[in-house]
Amino acid sequence: MAVRKTKEPIILVTNDDDITSPGIKNLVEAVKDLGKVVVVAPDSPQSGMGHAITIGSPLRMNKMNLFGEVEAWQTTGTPVDCVKLAVDKILHRKPDLCLSGINHGANHSINVIYSGTMSAAMEASIEGIPSIGFSLLDYRYEADFTASRHIVRTIVSKILKKKLDKHLLLNVNIPSVPMDEIKGIKVCRQAYAKYDEDFDERTDPHGKKYYWLTGEFKNFDKGKDTDVWALQRNYVSVVPVQFDLTNYTLKKQLEKTKLFS
Amino acid sequence: MAVRKTKEPIILVTNDDDITSPGIKNLVEAVKDLGKVVVVAPDSPQSGMGHAITIGSPLRMNKMNLFGEVEAWQTTGTPVDCVKLAVDKILHRKPDLCLSGINHGANHSINVIYSGTMSAAMEASIEGIPSIGFSLLDYRYEADFTASRHIVRTIVSKILKKKLDKHLLLNVNIPSVPMDEIKGIKVCRQAYAKYDEDFDERTDPHGKKYYWLTGEFKNFDKGKDTDVWALQRNYVSVVPVQFDLTNYTLKKQLEKTKLFS
Repeated sequence: MAVRKTKEPIILVTNDDDITSPGIKNLVEAVKDLGKVVVVAPDSPQSGMGHAITIGSPLRMNKMNLFGEVEAWQTTGTPVDCVKLAVDKILHRKPDLCLSGINHGANHSINVIYSGTMSAAMEASIEGIPSIGFSLLDYRYEADFTASRHIVRTIVSKILKKKLDKHLLLNVNIPSVPMDEIKGIKVCRQAYAKYDEDFDERTDPHGKKYYWLTGEFKNFDKGKDTDVWALQRNYVSVVPVQFDLTNYTLKKQLEKTKLFS
Repeated sequence: MAVRKTKEPIILVTNDDDITSPGIKNLVEAVKDLGKVVVVAPDSPQSGMGHAITIGSPLRMNKMNLFGEVEAWQTTGTPVDCVKLAVDKILHRKPDLCLSGINHGANHSINVIYSGTMSAAMEASIEGIPSIGFSLLDYRYEADFTASRHIVRTIVSKILKKKLDKHLLLNVNIPSVPMDEIKGIKVCRQAYAKYDEDFDERTDPHGKKYYWLTGEFKNFDKGKDTDVWALQRNYVSVVPVQFDLTNYTLKKQLEKTKLFS
């Protein structure tokens, strides 16, 4: 169980690629001397799981020896389950900060909705734990996380020095270039983009059809204040995220038209 | 395949409880003469799936005869997958409206984040299809959908008569009371509420521990403009929802403090 030195922040680390992925190892390396780090992460890949929780089956967790002296647990749950298990069954308290990632692949623009990495961070934010999701724009297992480690350390150090809102939630995306090509860190809004689906239709050996989800990313947003704009120019993008999904503009419109009165 | 009569709207119906649940049957009954209805829904329960998509395995779909003359397909995918398959492989076009539900159980307040019902509706909205998720505050299989059918029909009729934004997305929750006790329909904001987790720890016959996710719903929001407030007073709540998750207030704060400059 986590034992806390005086004033040393407890940092919960999770991800969606699974506990053995290089991304989470690099995240732990980047922050392990900034506080008491505890890892609670899925035992299998959970990309694209969104904000899924496990309600129809029970969960299991096992202590692992994967990160040297850093306490680590793998669970059979989703990224969101991991945050819930960490708070209730491992830490027995809220950590001071939750970090999710480093994801192998982009989570900018509309990807925030589908991302297990960002859903874990959002779950922490709902619980009142400041939280940051990190993603590198390189989906490969052998991606180079050297610059990412530096960026993560810079951002986490700055955040730990500030008195921040307990619901703070940041979506950080890092361009896949060496450190000396990174132009800086930009606070952005989420670009309006979507995927144009194109299912790959195949026939199995028994003559029955099956479909693989594929899709082409389309950015419809011409703004110069978006995450996609910043990343295309080799800036690190930081999008502050919220879990109040109310569309207040549409709410006013509907109230004005009295459509449902 | 869907054949469209002149000016008859195409209405895609989906859910997260599975295609055989009473909720979706009642939704189809409520709207089947308001347009050309096509059902594309999961073949197994998908509650709590959030915005999950299936990327690690292929999908299958089968035409079903469950709703009389209404065309229906079951798929092996999540609610979000169902919307994607419907547009790309079944309708071969965007429907004019997407309806999701009627969910067996509440999707007010923070539940919008975890809900497969609302994620299907949100996926449609991202695609530019006006969309509504319906939920009844009774999770039982044998729940009484009589009042819900009436409410659904009222709301869908009103929506079809208006020229609405293509990203329109509404989260409709219906109190579990007879029609004559329903006070009206209220446009609301999402209440700030969360679940206090409490995992039920058990030991299997082999001596190993496992955990069931349980939790107590806590509403922290005292506002009289929230969905929880309205539902407690027997109003139907309508929360307009958005998929731009940018927290613009925090964005301004971060820009002002120049934390990352």
